[in-house]
Amino acid sequence: MSDAERLDVTSGAALYIQDVTLRDGMHAMRHRISPENVARIAGALDRSGVDAIEVTHGDGLAGHSLTYGPGSNTDWEWIEAAASVVHRAKLTTLLLPGVGTVRELQRAFALGVTSVRVATHCTEADVAAQHIATARELGMDVSGFLMMSHLAEPADLARQAKLMESYGAHCVYVTDSGGRLTMSGVRERVRAYRDVLDADTPIGIHAHQNLSLSVANSVVAVEEGVTRVDASLAGHGAGAGNCPIEPFVAVADLNGWKHGCDLFGLQDAADDVVRPLQDRPVQVDRETLTLGYAGVYSSFLRHAEAAAARHGLDTRAILLAVGDRGLVGGQEDLITDIALDLAAGRSRS
Amino acid sequence: MSDAERLDVTSGAALYIQDVTLRDGMHAMRHRISPENVARIAGALDRSGVDAIEVTHGDGLAGHSLTYGPGSNTDWEWIEAAASVVHRAKLTTLLLPGVGTVRELQRAFALGVTSVRVATHCTEADVAAQHIATARELGMDVSGFLMMSHLAEPADLARQAKLMESYGAHCVYVTDSGGRLTMSGVRERVRAYRDVLDADTPIGIHAHQNLSLSVANSVVAVEEGVTRVDASLAGHGAGAGNCPIEPFVAVADLNGWKHGCDLFGLQDAADDVVRPLQDRPVQVDRETLTLGYAGVYSSFLRHAEAAAARHGLDTRAILLAVGDRGLVGGQEDLITDIALDLAAGRSRS
Repeated sequence: MSDAERLDVTSGAALYIQDVTLRDGMHAMRHRISPENVARIAGALDRSGVDAIEVTHGDGLAGHSLTYGPGSNTDWEWIEAAASVVHRAKLTTLLLPGVGTVRELQRAFALGVTSVRVATHCTEADVAAQHIATARELGMDVSGFLMMSHLAEPADLARQAKLMESYGAHCVYVTDSGGRLTMSGVRERVRAYRDVLDADTPIGIHAHQNLSLSVANSVVAVEEGVTRVDASLAGHGAGAGNCPIEPFVAVADLNGWKHGCDLFGLQDAADDVVRPLQDRPVQVDRETLTLGYAGVYSSFLRHAEAAAARHGLDTRAILLAVGDRGLVGGQEDLITDIALDLAAGRSRS
Repeated sequence: MSDAERLDVTSGAALYIQDVTLRDGMHAMRHRISPENVARIAGALDRSGVDAIEVTHGDGLAGHSLTYGPGSNTDWEWIEAAASVVHRAKLTTLLLPGVGTVRELQRAFALGVTSVRVATHCTEADVAAQHIATARELGMDVSGFLMMSHLAEPADLARQAKLMESYGAHCVYVTDSGGRLTMSGVRERVRAYRDVLDADTPIGIHAHQNLSLSVANSVVAVEEGVTRVDASLAGHGAGAGNCPIEPFVAVADLNGWKHGCDLFGLQDAADDVVRPLQDRPVQVDRETLTLGYAGVYSSFLRHAEAAAARHGLDTRAILLAVGDRGLVGGQEDLITDIALDLAAGRSRS
């Protein structure tokens, strides 16, 4: 980054840091966090100065009904627990049209949620129009959240972002759900957004750690003009986890970027509250790295493992084939075909 | 990176990947890895195609005599164990002048070590002259290793690199021992090296994970012309660990960079051999992040913790003060003064 660019970032508005420990992090706990622990985590985040705290099932409001598994509590119990302790930060949530409805959004709003992200696959922004409009009518802060952003070319993704903006989204995110983007992939997508969005529409980044690039990708995004950054305590989140908030804030400090977070408070919450709750480490390992390398959503992992065991294959070979075919959430049943093809190919060779 | 630059990297020579699991990773096990496990790890690395495998005490040949703690075995036992299973990779080691001597280097050479890095503090290249010359006389591949590179401005560091080259080093590294460099800091230092070193002198990168940027820093280094990259299985190494080899190799693949490594083989060695040996997780946590944020070498951590306990201070406040004063390894005793100052300041406020 040139000195001129650096000046631009450091003299600009403060970063808007959204914590996703209590939403994306639900995946890492199979959506089982007690309301007491939700309150402990939300309280620590609020005291540590994050701008927004996202709370709901990992798959968004009403995600409990999905095959991904029901949670330990209702969204309303979790939201009430967080609302009882959050005084400074914005309480926010996630809504996937088709999973949750405007009815759940209204109920969340009634419980004190003043912000929402409406999430769609990266090529399907149009299904978000009604939900974004409803959020605007309620007077909420609303963002578009284009999941699996690596599957769309930058210009195509930016056209979807422009649609989100046209429906009323205040902000649109580059959402690297698969943890597949490298720094250049993030840079190109943020620049494409900048090319088409209104100058005063903020851009957000949501990074995952599968390739061990989540902090770097978030840093590059900010260098390119992103002002909203997703992160979580200890990186707690799906797959290899999200962008860990502690090192991101440390790097923001070192770069002289303005933000409202207290590094030591976040470190204490990560090490004393979140890590002790984890029943398996959230890390870059054989499985989570391969998901990112293949660009496959984490819901495919257990299906691939089962098919690998049935057919005597390497789970990673199946995941790479899933990535090659560009399968998206909902197509998990096609794994059986892939496994049969791989097994047949092996017996021929 | 522009398309032209990308072409340059992908069409150029293959990357030279040096594994440091059995040297920097010794720190993470208090220099206690059995020769049997050294052989298991070295064998897996050799089969997975890494170019060089570094073996010795974490502080280099004869590091056992330091206050950092003696190892479980002699350097010679470790090197013999590795040499017995390594058939393709270069066997290499580390030498800190003042800790090890040319005599140890000669003994390592006699055991089959054909490559060495001679390491000095980033401002003290001159103490390496004799050791580099001896390595050249033996016919070894020899590199200069400028530790704590963040403490020298790019142009100053490059002058030290030029000295290393003038003594006979085939390659010189940007060595981020403190895990304090961000991507721009790496980029500036590699460019400064390029400005002064001979065009055919390779440049290396040695990154640490304290700020969660080790893979990104290594990627940026390669984009700027670095061809030798240090990494370790599962990031096993001092502090927050080294650049984890599995995600680095995955990103190299995604970028189309040539290298000789087998990703699946490295993943299996990381998860099946190295992680089960770790008696504490190697991760970015409160302690290791603060070391990187403060730019302090990890040997200061336990001294800072002890002083914090004695004076009722936060360990992190001490580490930040150590970083502010630019203390380097060997000055650990000054921590007591810092703690007294901080305690006095607190009682005045």
